[in-house]
Amino acid sequence: MDDLRNAEPLRVALLGCGVVGSQVARLLLEQSDDLASRIGRRLELVGIAVRDATRIRPGLPQELFTTDAESLVTRDDIDIVIEVIGGIEPTRTWLLQAMAHGASVVTANKALLAQESETLFATAAEKGVDLYFEAAVAGAIPIVRPLQESLVGDEIHTVMGIVNGTTNYILDKMHADGADFAEALAEAQKKGFAEADPTADIEGHDAAAKAALIASMAFHTRVRGDEVFCEGITDVTAADVEAAKQLGCVVKLLAVATLTDTKPPQVSVRVHPAMMPGDHPLAAVTGAYNAIFVEAESAGRLMFLGPGAGGEPTAAAITGDLVTVARNRVRGAIGPGESTYTRRRVVPITEARTRYYLRFVVKDEPGVLAGVASIFARHGVSVQSVHQNAIIGPMDGWAAELGMVTHHAQEGQLRSCLAELRDSEYTQAGVRVLRVEGMAS
Amino acid sequence: MDDLRNAEPLRVALLGCGVVGSQVARLLLEQSDDLASRIGRRLELVGIAVRDATRIRPGLPQELFTTDAESLVTRDDIDIVIEVIGGIEPTRTWLLQAMAHGASVVTANKALLAQESETLFATAAEKGVDLYFEAAVAGAIPIVRPLQESLVGDEIHTVMGIVNGTTNYILDKMHADGADFAEALAEAQKKGFAEADPTADIEGHDAAAKAALIASMAFHTRVRGDEVFCEGITDVTAADVEAAKQLGCVVKLLAVATLTDTKPPQVSVRVHPAMMPGDHPLAAVTGAYNAIFVEAESAGRLMFLGPGAGGEPTAAAITGDLVTVARNRVRGAIGPGESTYTRRRVVPITEARTRYYLRFVVKDEPGVLAGVASIFARHGVSVQSVHQNAIIGPMDGWAAELGMVTHHAQEGQLRSCLAELRDSEYTQAGVRVLRVEGMAS
Repeated sequence: MDDLRNAEPLRVALLGCGVVGSQVARLLLEQSDDLASRIGRRLELVGIAVRDATRIRPGLPQELFTTDAESLVTRDDIDIVIEVIGGIEPTRTWLLQAMAHGASVVTANKALLAQESETLFATAAEKGVDLYFEAAVAGAIPIVRPLQESLVGDEIHTVMGIVNGTTNYILDKMHADGADFAEALAEAQKKGFAEADPTADIEGHDAAAKAALIASMAFHTRVRGDEVFCEGITDVTAADVEAAKQLGCVVKLLAVATLTDTKPPQVSVRVHPAMMPGDHPLAAVTGAYNAIFVEAESAGRLMFLGPGAGGEPTAAAITGDLVTVARNRVRGAIGPGESTYTRRRVVPITEARTRYYLRFVVKDEPGVLAGVASIFARHGVSVQSVHQNAIIGPMDGWAAELGMVTHHAQEGQLRSCLAELRDSEYTQAGVRVLRVEGMAS
Repeated sequence: MDDLRNAEPLRVALLGCGVVGSQVARLLLEQSDDLASRIGRRLELVGIAVRDATRIRPGLPQELFTTDAESLVTRDDIDIVIEVIGGIEPTRTWLLQAMAHGASVVTANKALLAQESETLFATAAEKGVDLYFEAAVAGAIPIVRPLQESLVGDEIHTVMGIVNGTTNYILDKMHADGADFAEALAEAQKKGFAEADPTADIEGHDAAAKAALIASMAFHTRVRGDEVFCEGITDVTAADVEAAKQLGCVVKLLAVATLTDTKPPQVSVRVHPAMMPGDHPLAAVTGAYNAIFVEAESAGRLMFLGPGAGGEPTAAAITGDLVTVARNRVRGAIGPGESTYTRRRVVPITEARTRYYLRFVVKDEPGVLAGVASIFARHGVSVQSVHQNAIIGPMDGWAAELGMVTHHAQEGQLRSCLAELRDSEYTQAGVRVLRVEGMAS
C-alpha cells in the first residue's frame, strides 16, 4: 500500500446524486482502501454535480457539491467521470466535454447511448479514453462484457430479454390475481415498483433503449433506440392473461433482437408484450428480476439472470466499470471499446417474422371457420392451432370465441390478414392479437 | 478490408487437435474473412501440434501438422498460442516457453490453471502478454469476464455452481428413473455423456479444478485445485434421491465457494453432492447444462446458464478469447490479467459451515429420540426438522428410519456428532449424510 499512498490518486467526478449516485459516492468514500487495493491506485472523489448543492445529503461532505457541471467536467485533472443524471441534453454535451478533456466515462444512461452511441464512441476512440456502460443494460446483470467480448467469436442469432422490472412486476400481478392492467399498475406504484409517471416503463421506451444497446452489441452493428419497434403493456387485459394461461403460456414484455436468415443477414429489434410457453427459461423470471436469453451458433443457449434495477445493483454495475476503467488508467491501457465492425440493415416491423395469437368472436354457424381459414390462406399466414375458448349466449345468434396460433409469418402479411378479418362478416367485436415467442414449432 | 490485406497477419499456433481443437482449426480456416473484420487484422494458422502428424483430419491441410510442439511455440513470430491438449506437463512448459517468446496464450486447461496459475500469470505479466481461459470454466458460459471485471467493484459472498455436465446428467437420470448410480453411469456412457474412464467427472476432480478458478476470480485471491475439498457422486444412492424428493429437494453435484463471516474473511471451497430445494434456480438446471449462481453484496442474486461442455460451445469460448486477445495485439494493449490483489486463507473442510441431512435407522422404542437429540446437542449441532421416513419390520424389534435436517453447523462438529451417533446404541446399519445447500433457514 506504500506506493499506493505516494502515487497521485485518480480523480473522479460524479454527475448526479440520486438513488444510484449517492450509493456510488458513499462507496467511493467508505470503501476507499478496498477500492485502492483492487485498482492499484487511490481514487479521489473531487466533485459531485447536482441541481441543488445546498441540500444536505447524509454522509456526503457538503464541499463536494456543485451546480456547475460544466466546470467540473472540463477540469484537466479529472481521470474518470461517472454519469447518473440521465436524459439527452445537457448530459451529452458534458460527457463529450469530459472526454475532450481526457477523462474516461462510466455511464448508466441508456437513452443517451441508444440515441448518440456513434458520436460518443467516436469521441472516446479519438481521445483515447474509455466509455463503459454496464449499468445501462439490465441493471446488475453482467451482459456487456459477455456480448462484446466472450461471445465475439461466435454468431448470435437471437437475444430475447426481460429488461424492465416494472412491467414484469405488473404482468406477474395480473397473472397471480387476474387483475386488470390499471389495478396492477396502481399496486406497483403503491409498492414503489412503478414511478408516479410510469410512461417510460409501461410504454416500453426504457426496454426499447436497452434493446438497441443489446442488439448493437450482439450483432456488432449500430442500432438506435428510434429504430426499435416498441409496443407497451397498457393494452394487455386480464382476458389476454387468462387466454395465455389456457395455452400453458405467460404474457411477458420482451425485448427481442434477431438476425434474419436473409443474405446478407439483417437485424430485427422489437419490444412488445408476447405470449411465451410456461416452460421457457424466461417464463420463470418474475418480479423485479431481469434476464437475457441468448442463442448463438456455437455456444448454444445461454441465460443471464439478476436484479434489473434498484440503487444498489445499479451502483454495483457502475463500480465494476469504475474499477475496470481505473485499472486501465493505471496500466496506461484502454478497454476494448465498441465492437460495431459491420453495418446491418434494421428491418421495419412489417418485415419482422414471428408467430401470432389471435382471439375473436365468430358466429357459431356453418361455413364460418372455412371463411376465416380462407382469409388466412389468402394472406399466406398458416395456422398451427385453433382453440375454442367459450360459447357465448345469443347476441344475434349463438357465437363462439376462438383463439388461433399461427406459424411464423411476416408481420406485414399478418397485418393485411388482420385487416381483412376485422372487416369480414365472420368476426364480431374486433380481433385481439398478441405476438408469440419461444414456442417450439 | 484493403489495409487488412496489406498488414502482416497475426500468427496463431494450435496445440492439440481433438474435438475442440479441430473445431477451432476449422473455424480459423473457414471463417477467416469474418474473423479478420472482427479483429481488424487477418489471422494465419501456422501450425498444429499433435501426437500423430500423419493422421488425416478432414478439412485440415496436412502440412500444418507437426509433432514438435516445442519448435512451434518457440518460434519468435507466433502471436497467439491456443492450447487444448490438457494435462500438466509438458503443456505447462510449452505455454511458459510460448509466453517467453512473446506469444499470448488462450487455454481451456482447467487442471493446469488450478495448479499453476501463479507461475503462469506471473510469466504473462512479466512478458507483457495475455493469458485468457474462458473455456476452462463452465464451457461456453461467459463467467470469467463477469467475475473478474463486471463484479470487481462488488463483494461476492457465495458462488454456487453446477459445473460438470456428466454428473448432472447421471443425477438427473437417477431422479427420473429411480436408477442407481451404476445404471445411470452406464446409460450416460452409452449415450456419450460420460467417458469410458469417467473418474475425473464422477469423483469431482473436474469440478474441483473449476471451483478453484471460480473462487480465485470471485474472491480475488489464489485458490489451488488441491485446496478444494472434493467428494464425488459415486456414493449417491437411489435411496438418497428418493429421500431428497420426499423433502421437495433434488441431489446435485455442487461447486460451492463462500467467503466466511470471520474477520478477516476467509475462503471455503468445496465440491460435493448436496440436497437442494426444488425451487432453487440451480435445481432446474438439467442434463448437460452448467450454471453458476452468484450472491453479491450490492448486485444481489445473479445466475449464468449455458452448455457446460462439448466441442462447439468450448470452441466458441476459445474463439471469443482469441478475438479479444488478437484485438489487444492489434491495439498494442493487453487485457486486465489476473485479479488476485488479496491473500485469503482457504479454510479446511472441518471449518466449513453448512447444513446437513442425516438418515439412519433407530429402534422404535421410548427414549431413542431423546438419546439421539442429546448427542446432537452435545456437539453443538442444532436440528431443524425430523422426518420419519418409514417403519421397518422386526429386525430385533420394530425400527424406524429417520431423516434429520440440521441448522448451519461446522463440518468438524458435525463429524464428531456423527462419530458418536454411529457408535451409539440408538442407530443401526450406519448413518447416511448429505450436505444441504440453498435451503432457507
